[in-house]
Amino acid sequence: MVLCDIGNSYLHFYYNGRVWKVQAEKLERDEALLPLYYISVNQKKTRKLLESFPEAINLAPYMMLDTTYKGLGADRIAACRGISDGVIVDAGSAITVDIMQNDIHLGGYILPGLATFGKLYRAISPILGSDLNLAIELNAFPQNTRDAVSYGALKSILLMIESSAKNKKLYFTGGDGKFLARFFSGAVQDDSLVFKGMLKSIDTLNDRHKD
Amino acid sequence: MVLCDIGNSYLHFYYNGRVWKVQAEKLERDEALLPLYYISVNQKKTRKLLESFPEAINLAPYMMLDTTYKGLGADRIAACRGISDGVIVDAGSAITVDIMQNDIHLGGYILPGLATFGKLYRAISPILGSDLNLAIELNAFPQNTRDAVSYGALKSILLMIESSAKNKKLYFTGGDGKFLARFFSGAVQDDSLVFKGMLKSIDTLNDRHKD
Repeated sequence: MVLCDIGNSYLHFYYNGRVWKVQAEKLERDEALLPLYYISVNQKKTRKLLESFPEAINLAPYMMLDTTYKGLGADRIAACRGISDGVIVDAGSAITVDIMQNDIHLGGYILPGLATFGKLYRAISPILGSDLNLAIELNAFPQNTRDAVSYGALKSILLMIESSAKNKKLYFTGGDGKFLARFFSGAVQDDSLVFKGMLKSIDTLNDRHKD
Repeated sequence: MVLCDIGNSYLHFYYNGRVWKVQAEKLERDEALLPLYYISVNQKKTRKLLESFPEAINLAPYMMLDTTYKGLGADRIAACRGISDGVIVDAGSAITVDIMQNDIHLGGYILPGLATFGKLYRAISPILGSDLNLAIELNAFPQNTRDAVSYGALKSILLMIESSAKNKKLYFTGGDGKFLARFFSGAVQDDSLVFKGMLKSIDTLNDRHKD
Protein backbone atom coordinates (compact mmCIF):
# COMPACT_ATOMS: atom_id res chain seq x y z
CA MET A 1 0.00 0.00 0.00
CA VAL A 2 1.44 3.37 -1.10
CA LEU A 3 0.39 6.87 0.06
CA CYS A 4 0.63 10.09 -1.96
CA ASP A 5 0.42 13.68 -0.64
CA ILE A 6 -0.13 16.02 -3.60
CA GLY A 7 1.24 19.51 -2.81
CA ASN A 8 1.58 22.66 -4.91
CA SER A 9 5.16 21.81 -5.94
CA TYR A 10 5.58 18.01 -5.77
CA LEU A 11 3.80 14.71 -5.28
CA HIS A 12 5.14 13.17 -2.07
CA PHE A 13 5.01 9.37 -1.83
CA TYR A 14 5.22 7.07 1.21
CA TYR A 15 5.82 3.34 1.36
CA ASN A 16 6.84 1.37 4.45
CA GLY A 17 8.34 4.39 6.24
CA ARG A 18 10.20 5.52 3.10
CA VAL A 19 9.32 9.00 1.70
CA TRP A 20 10.17 10.38 -1.76
CA LYS A 21 8.93 13.17 -4.06
CA VAL A 22 8.14 13.26 -7.79
CA GLN A 23 7.31 16.12 -10.18
CA ALA A 24 3.80 15.73 -11.68
CA GLU A 25 5.28 15.90 -15.23
CA LYS A 26 7.68 13.03 -14.52
CA LEU A 27 5.02 10.73 -13.05
CA GLU A 28 4.76 7.27 -14.68
CA ARG A 29 2.42 4.36 -14.02
CA ASP A 30 3.99 1.66 -11.86
CA GLU A 31 1.86 -1.32 -10.74
CA ALA A 32 4.17 -1.70 -7.72
CA LEU A 33 2.64 1.53 -6.31
CA LEU A 34 -0.84 -0.04 -6.00
CA PRO A 35 -3.06 0.11 -4.02
CA LEU A 36 -2.50 3.91 -3.96
CA TYR A 37 -4.22 6.29 -1.50
CA TYR A 38 -3.88 10.07 -1.95
CA ILE A 39 -4.81 13.49 -0.59
CA SER A 40 -4.34 16.73 -2.56
CA VAL A 41 -4.35 20.53 -2.33
CA ASN A 42 -3.71 20.96 -6.07
CA GLN A 43 -6.39 20.02 -8.65
CA LYS A 44 -4.09 20.08 -11.69
CA LYS A 45 -1.53 17.76 -10.13
CA THR A 46 -4.36 15.48 -8.94
CA ARG A 47 -5.48 15.06 -12.58
CA LYS A 48 -1.90 14.11 -13.50
CA LEU A 49 -1.89 11.42 -10.80
CA LEU A 50 -5.28 10.02 -11.89
CA GLU A 51 -4.11 9.86 -15.54
CA SER A 52 -1.41 7.37 -14.48
CA PHE A 53 -3.32 5.80 -11.56
CA PRO A 54 -7.09 5.98 -12.29
CA GLU A 55 -7.74 3.57 -9.41
CA ALA A 56 -6.05 5.80 -6.80
CA ILE A 57 -8.33 6.40 -3.79
CA ASN A 58 -8.89 9.93 -2.41
CA LEU A 59 -8.67 9.76 1.40
CA ALA A 60 -10.05 13.30 1.96
CA PRO A 61 -13.63 12.09 2.66
CA TYR A 62 -12.27 9.90 5.50
CA MET A 63 -10.16 12.66 7.09
CA MET A 64 -12.02 13.60 10.26
CA LEU A 65 -10.69 16.41 12.48
CA ASP A 66 -12.32 18.25 15.40
CA THR A 67 -12.01 21.87 14.18
CA THR A 68 -14.06 25.00 13.41
CA TYR A 69 -11.57 25.95 10.66
CA LYS A 70 -13.27 26.29 7.25
CA GLY A 71 -11.38 24.94 4.23
CA LEU A 72 -8.48 23.26 6.00
CA GLY A 73 -6.33 21.49 3.38
CA ALA A 74 -6.33 17.69 3.43
CA ASP A 75 -2.56 17.69 4.04
CA ARG A 76 -2.97 19.88 7.14
CA ILE A 77 -5.84 17.71 8.42
CA ALA A 78 -3.65 14.62 7.93
CA ALA A 79 -0.68 16.17 9.75
CA CYS A 80 -2.95 17.31 12.62
CA ARG A 81 -4.34 13.76 12.90
CA GLY A 82 -0.72 12.64 13.27
CA ILE A 83 -0.48 14.21 16.78
CA SER A 84 -2.75 14.97 19.79
CA ASP A 85 -0.98 18.00 21.28
CA GLY A 86 1.50 20.47 19.82
CA VAL A 87 2.19 22.84 16.96
CA ILE A 88 2.69 21.46 13.44
CA VAL A 89 4.84 23.42 11.01
CA ASP A 90 4.65 22.15 7.42
CA ALA A 91 7.33 24.13 5.57
CA GLY A 92 7.07 23.92 1.79
CA SER A 93 6.33 26.60 -0.85
CA ALA A 94 3.92 27.81 1.82
CA ILE A 95 4.46 27.33 5.56
CA THR A 96 1.32 26.19 7.37
CA VAL A 97 1.24 26.32 11.17
CA ASP A 98 -1.52 24.41 13.01
CA ILE A 99 -2.17 24.19 16.75
CA MET A 100 -3.50 20.97 18.30
CA GLN A 101 -4.68 20.46 21.90
CA ASN A 102 -6.23 17.21 23.20
CA ASP A 103 -6.96 16.06 19.62
CA ILE A 104 -8.75 19.36 18.93
CA HIS A 105 -7.51 21.73 16.19
CA LEU A 106 -7.44 25.27 17.70
CA GLY A 107 -6.73 26.97 14.35
CA GLY A 108 -3.75 27.81 12.20
CA TYR A 109 -2.16 30.26 9.80
CA ILE A 110 -0.13 30.42 6.59
CA LEU A 111 3.23 32.06 5.86
CA PRO A 112 5.13 32.26 2.57
CA GLY A 113 7.76 29.51 2.30
CA LEU A 114 11.46 30.44 2.35
CA ALA A 115 11.83 29.99 -1.44
CA THR A 116 8.65 32.02 -1.99
CA PHE A 117 10.08 34.89 0.07
CA GLY A 118 13.02 34.98 -2.33
CA LYS A 119 10.69 35.21 -5.37
CA LEU A 120 8.64 37.86 -3.54
CA TYR A 121 11.61 40.15 -3.02
CA ARG A 122 12.55 39.78 -6.71
CA ALA A 123 8.98 40.81 -7.59
CA ILE A 124 9.40 44.07 -5.65
CA SER A 125 12.74 44.98 -7.22
CA PRO A 126 15.56 43.16 -9.05
CA ILE A 127 17.94 44.79 -6.52
CA LEU A 128 16.30 42.66 -3.79
CA GLY A 129 16.35 39.51 -5.91
CA SER A 130 19.39 37.60 -4.66
CA ASP A 131 19.09 34.12 -3.13
CA LEU A 132 18.48 34.21 0.61
CA ASN A 133 21.48 33.85 2.93
CA LEU A 134 20.14 31.21 5.33
CA ALA A 135 23.35 31.36 7.42
CA ILE A 136 22.41 34.93 8.40
CA GLU A 137 23.28 36.12 11.96
CA LEU A 138 19.90 36.75 13.59
CA ASN A 139 21.19 38.60 16.66
CA ALA A 140 22.81 41.53 14.83
CA PHE A 141 21.20 43.99 12.40
CA PRO A 142 22.05 43.26 8.73
CA GLN A 143 24.64 45.41 6.94
CA ASN A 144 23.83 44.70 3.27
CA THR A 145 20.81 44.11 1.02
CA ARG A 146 21.08 40.31 0.72
CA ASP A 147 21.35 39.90 4.50
CA ALA A 148 18.54 42.47 5.00
CA VAL A 149 16.03 40.42 2.96
CA SER A 150 17.29 37.08 4.37
CA TYR A 151 16.97 38.38 7.94
CA GLY A 152 13.48 39.70 7.19
CA ALA A 153 12.30 36.38 5.74
CA LEU A 154 13.90 33.93 8.18
CA LYS A 155 13.49 35.91 11.41
CA SER A 156 9.80 36.70 10.73
CA ILE A 157 9.12 32.98 10.18
CA LEU A 158 10.98 32.03 13.39
CA LEU A 159 9.26 34.74 15.48
CA MET A 160 5.83 33.57 14.28
CA ILE A 161 6.54 29.92 15.13
CA GLU A 162 7.98 30.94 18.52
CA SER A 163 4.95 33.09 19.34
CA SER A 164 2.48 30.28 18.61
CA ALA A 165 4.56 27.49 20.21
CA LYS A 166 4.84 28.93 23.75
CA ASN A 167 5.29 25.76 25.90
CA LYS A 168 3.84 23.40 23.27
CA LYS A 169 5.89 20.75 21.46
CA LEU A 170 6.89 21.68 17.89
CA TYR A 171 6.60 19.21 14.98
CA PHE A 172 8.30 20.13 11.70
CA THR A 173 7.63 18.54 8.34
CA GLY A 174 7.95 19.53 4.66
CA GLY A 175 10.97 20.44 2.52
CA ASP A 176 12.32 23.14 4.85
CA GLY A 177 11.16 21.38 8.03
CA LYS A 178 14.59 19.98 8.86
CA PHE A 179 16.26 23.40 8.43
CA LEU A 180 13.68 25.28 10.55
CA ALA A 181 13.59 22.60 13.30
CA ARG A 182 17.26 23.34 14.06
CA PHE A 183 16.26 26.72 15.54
CA PHE A 184 14.03 25.17 18.24
CA SER A 185 15.41 22.96 21.02
CA GLY A 186 13.34 19.84 21.58
CA ALA A 187 11.56 20.20 18.24
CA VAL A 188 10.60 17.02 16.38
CA GLN A 189 11.29 16.74 12.64
CA ASP A 190 9.12 14.10 10.95
CA ASP A 191 8.79 13.84 7.15
CA SER A 192 6.04 11.24 7.54
CA LEU A 193 3.68 13.25 9.79
CA VAL A 194 1.11 13.75 7.01
CA PHE A 195 1.37 10.09 6.07
CA LYS A 196 0.85 8.95 9.68
CA GLY A 197 -2.44 10.86 9.64
CA MET A 198 -3.34 9.28 6.30
CA LEU A 199 -2.68 5.81 7.74
CA LYS A 200 -5.08 6.57 10.64
CA SER A 201 -7.75 7.51 8.07
CA ILE A 202 -7.22 4.27 6.18
CA ASP A 203 -7.93 2.41 9.44
CA THR A 204 -11.18 4.43 9.73
CA LEU A 205 -11.99 3.51 6.12
CA ASN A 206 -11.30 -0.20 6.67
CA ASP A 207 -13.27 -0.28 9.96
CA ARG A 208 -16.26 1.10 8.04
CA HIS A 209 -15.99 -1.60 5.42
CA LYS A 210 -15.95 -4.20 8.21
CA ASP A 211 -19.42 -2.98 9.35
CA MET B 1 11.73 74.25 -4.21
CA VAL B 2 10.14 70.82 -4.72
CA LEU B 3 11.45 67.41 -3.54
CA CYS B 4 10.81 64.03 -5.23
CA ASP B 5 11.35 60.57 -3.71
CA ILE B 6 11.25 58.00 -6.53
CA GLY B 7 10.14 54.61 -5.20
CA ASN B 8 9.38 51.31 -6.93
CA SER B 9 5.66 52.11 -7.22
CA TYR B 10 5.24 55.91 -7.25
CA LEU B 11 7.05 59.22 -7.42
CA HIS B 12 6.41 61.00 -4.11
CA PHE B 13 6.55 64.81 -4.19
CA TYR B 14 6.98 67.33 -1.36
CA TYR B 15 6.38 71.07 -1.37
CA ASN B 16 6.04 73.28 1.72
CA GLY B 17 4.99 70.40 4.01
CA ARG B 18 2.53 69.04 1.45
CA VAL B 19 3.11 65.47 0.14
CA TRP B 20 1.53 63.85 -2.94
CA LYS B 21 2.27 60.89 -5.22
CA VAL B 22 2.25 60.51 -9.04
CA GLN B 23 2.57 57.46 -11.32
CA ALA B 24 5.66 57.73 -13.57
CA GLU B 25 3.47 57.29 -16.68
CA LYS B 26 1.24 60.23 -15.70
CA LEU B 27 4.13 62.60 -15.01
CA GLU B 28 3.99 65.93 -16.94
CA ARG B 29 6.37 68.89 -17.02
CA ASP B 30 5.30 71.74 -14.77
CA GLU B 31 7.59 74.77 -14.36
CA ALA B 32 5.99 75.40 -10.96
CA LEU B 33 7.81 72.29 -9.66
CA LEU B 34 11.26 73.85 -10.24
CA PRO B 35 13.85 73.80 -8.77
CA LEU B 36 13.37 70.04 -8.31
CA TYR B 37 15.59 67.83 -6.11
CA TYR B 38 15.21 64.04 -6.20
CA ILE B 39 16.44 60.72 -4.81
CA SER B 40 15.61 57.36 -6.39
CA VAL B 41 15.69 53.59 -5.88
CA ASN B 42 14.26 52.90 -9.35
CA GLN B 43 16.32 53.61 -12.52
CA LYS B 44 13.40 53.33 -14.97
CA LYS B 45 11.22 55.78 -13.07
CA THR B 46 14.22 58.12 -12.70
CA ARG B 47 14.54 58.25 -16.51
CA LYS B 48 10.83 59.16 -16.72
CA LEU B 49 11.37 62.04 -14.28
CA LEU B 50 14.41 63.33 -16.19
CA GLU B 51 12.48 63.22 -19.51
CA SER B 52 10.05 65.80 -18.07
CA PHE B 53 12.53 67.56 -15.77
CA PRO B 54 16.05 67.31 -17.28
CA GLU B 55 17.28 69.94 -14.80
CA ALA B 56 16.23 67.92 -11.72
CA ILE B 57 19.10 67.53 -9.23
CA ASN B 58 20.00 64.11 -7.75
CA LEU B 59 20.61 64.58 -4.00
CA ALA B 60 22.10 61.07 -3.48
CA PRO B 61 25.74 62.31 -3.66
CA TYR B 62 25.01 64.72 -0.79
CA MET B 63 23.31 62.10 1.45
CA MET B 64 25.83 61.39 4.20
CA LEU B 65 25.04 58.77 6.86
CA ASP B 66 27.28 57.15 9.48
CA THR B 67 26.76 53.45 8.66
CA THR B 68 28.62 50.24 7.71
CA TYR B 69 25.59 49.07 5.64
CA LYS B 70 26.53 48.46 1.98
CA GLY B 71 24.00 49.58 -0.66
CA LEU B 72 21.55 51.43 1.58
CA GLY B 73 18.87 53.02 -0.65
CA ALA B 74 18.85 56.82 -0.91
CA ASP B 75 15.29 56.90 0.52
CA ARG B 76 16.39 54.93 3.61
CA ILE B 77 19.43 57.19 4.06
CA ALA B 78 17.18 60.24 3.82
CA ALA B 79 14.68 58.85 6.36
CA CYS B 80 17.52 57.95 8.75
CA ARG B 81 18.91 61.47 8.45
CA GLY B 82 15.45 62.66 9.51
CA ILE B 83 15.99 61.35 13.10
CA SER B 84 18.87 60.80 15.59
CA ASP B 85 17.49 57.92 17.68
CA GLY B 86 14.77 55.37 16.98
CA VAL B 87 13.50 52.79 14.52
CA ILE B 88 12.24 53.90 11.09
CA VAL B 89 9.63 51.76 9.34
CA ASP B 90 9.04 52.75 5.71
CA ALA B 91 6.04 50.65 4.65
CA GLY B 92 5.48 50.56 0.89
CA SER B 93 5.65 47.69 -1.63
CA ALA B 94 8.59 46.67 0.56
CA ILE B 95 8.87 47.45 4.28
CA THR B 96 12.32 48.70 5.26
CA VAL B 97 13.22 48.87 8.95
CA ASP B 98 16.28 50.88 10.01
CA ILE B 99 17.72 51.39 13.48
CA MET B 100 19.33 54.72 14.45
CA GLN B 101 21.26 55.51 17.64
CA ASN B 102 23.01 58.83 18.33
CA ASP B 103 22.95 59.71 14.60
CA ILE B 104 24.59 56.35 13.79
CA HIS B 105 22.80 53.77 11.58
CA LEU B 106 23.09 50.36 13.34
CA GLY B 107 21.69 48.40 10.37
CA GLY B 108 18.31 47.42 9.01
CA TYR B 109 16.26 44.82 7.21
CA ILE B 110 13.59 44.42 4.54
CA LEU B 111 10.17 42.75 4.68
CA PRO B 112 7.60 42.30 1.91
CA GLY B 113 4.95 45.04 1.98
CA LEU B 114 1.36 44.16 2.89
CA ALA B 115 0.19 44.30 -0.75
CA THR B 116 3.23 42.24 -1.80
CA PHE B 117 2.32 39.53 0.74
CA GLY B 118 -1.08 39.26 -0.96
CA LYS B 119 0.58 38.74 -4.39
CA LEU B 120 3.00 36.27 -2.81
CA TYR B 121 0.23 34.04 -1.52
CA ARG B 122 -1.49 34.13 -4.93
CA ALA B 123 1.80 33.01 -6.51
CA ILE B 124 1.83 29.91 -4.26
CA SER B 125 -1.78 28.91 -5.00
CA PRO B 126 -4.94 30.62 -6.30
CA ILE B 127 -6.68 29.22 -3.20
CA LEU B 128 -4.51 31.53 -1.07
CA GLY B 129 -5.04 34.51 -3.37
CA SER B 130 -7.76 36.52 -1.64
CA ASP B 131 -7.19 40.13 -0.50
CA LEU B 132 -5.83 40.31 3.02
CA ASN B 133 -8.26 40.89 5.89
CA LEU B 134 -6.46 43.69 7.75
CA ALA B 135 -9.15 43.73 10.47
CA ILE B 136 -7.98 40.25 11.51
CA GLU B 137 -8.06 39.35 15.24
CA LEU B 138 -4.39 38.82 16.17
CA ASN B 139 -4.97 37.22 19.59
CA ALA B 140 -6.93 34.17 18.37
CA PHE B 141 -5.84 31.51 15.86
CA PRO B 142 -7.48 31.98 12.42
CA GLN B 143 -10.39 29.72 11.41
CA ASN B 144 -10.39 30.14 7.61
CA THR B 145 -7.92 30.50 4.72
CA ARG B 146 -8.29 34.26 4.17
CA ASP B 147 -7.74 34.97 7.88
CA ALA B 148 -4.87 32.43 7.96
CA VAL B 149 -2.87 34.29 5.28
CA SER B 150 -3.83 37.73 6.65
CA TYR B 151 -2.75 36.72 10.16
CA GLY B 152 0.52 35.32 8.77
CA ALA B 153 1.35 38.50 6.85
CA LEU B 154 0.25 41.14 9.39
CA LYS B 155 1.40 39.43 12.60
CA SER B 156 4.84 38.56 11.21
CA ILE B 157 5.37 42.21 10.22
CA LEU B 158 4.23 43.42 13.68
CA LEU B 159 6.39 40.87 15.55
CA MET B 160 9.46 41.91 13.56
CA ILE B 161 8.92 45.62 14.25
CA GLU B 162 8.25 44.89 17.93
CA SER B 163 11.41 42.76 18.25
CA SER B 164 13.64 45.49 16.78
CA ALA B 165 11.95 48.41 18.56
CA LYS B 166 12.43 47.26 22.18
CA ASN B 167 12.44 50.58 24.12
CA LYS B 168 13.27 52.73 21.07
CA LYS B 169 10.85 55.25 19.55
CA LEU B 170 9.11 54.06 16.34
CA TYR B 171 8.75 56.30 13.27
CA PHE B 172 6.38 55.14 10.52
CA THR B 173 6.30 56.44 6.97
CA GLY B 174 5.21 55.18 3.52
CA GLY B 175 1.80 54.14 2.18
CA ASP B 176 1.01 51.63 4.96
CA GLY B 177 2.80 53.63 7.67
CA LYS B 178 -0.38 55.11 9.10
CA PHE B 179 -2.07 51.69 9.31
CA LEU B 180 0.92 49.96 10.98
CA ALA B 181 1.57 52.84 13.41
CA ARG B 182 -1.84 52.19 15.01
CA PHE B 183 -0.51 48.95 16.50
CA PHE B 184 2.24 50.66 18.53
CA SER B 185 1.47 53.09 21.35
CA GLY B 186 3.61 56.24 21.21
CA ALA B 187 4.62 55.60 17.60
CA VAL B 188 5.12 58.62 15.32
CA GLN B 189 3.62 58.60 11.82
CA ASP B 190 5.34 61.09 9.50
CA ASP B 191 4.85 61.06 5.71
CA SER B 192 7.59 63.66 5.29
CA LEU B 193 10.39 61.79 7.12
CA VAL B 194 12.32 61.06 3.89
CA PHE B 195 11.82 64.66 2.76
CA LYS B 196 13.11 66.05 6.08
CA GLY B 197 16.32 64.12 5.46
CA MET B 198 16.47 65.45 1.89
CA LEU B 199 16.10 69.03 3.17
CA LYS B 200 19.07 68.48 5.52
CA SER B 201 21.14 67.33 2.51
CA ILE B 202 20.15 70.42 0.52
CA ASP B 203 21.55 72.52 3.37
CA THR B 204 24.80 70.52 3.10
CA LEU B 205 24.79 71.12 -0.65
CA ASN B 206 24.18 74.89 -0.28
CA ASP B 207 26.82 75.20 2.46
CA ARG B 208 29.36 73.65 0.02
CA HIS B 209 28.44 76.15 -2.70
CA LYS B 210 28.99 78.94 -0.18
CA ASP B 211 32.65 77.88 0.22
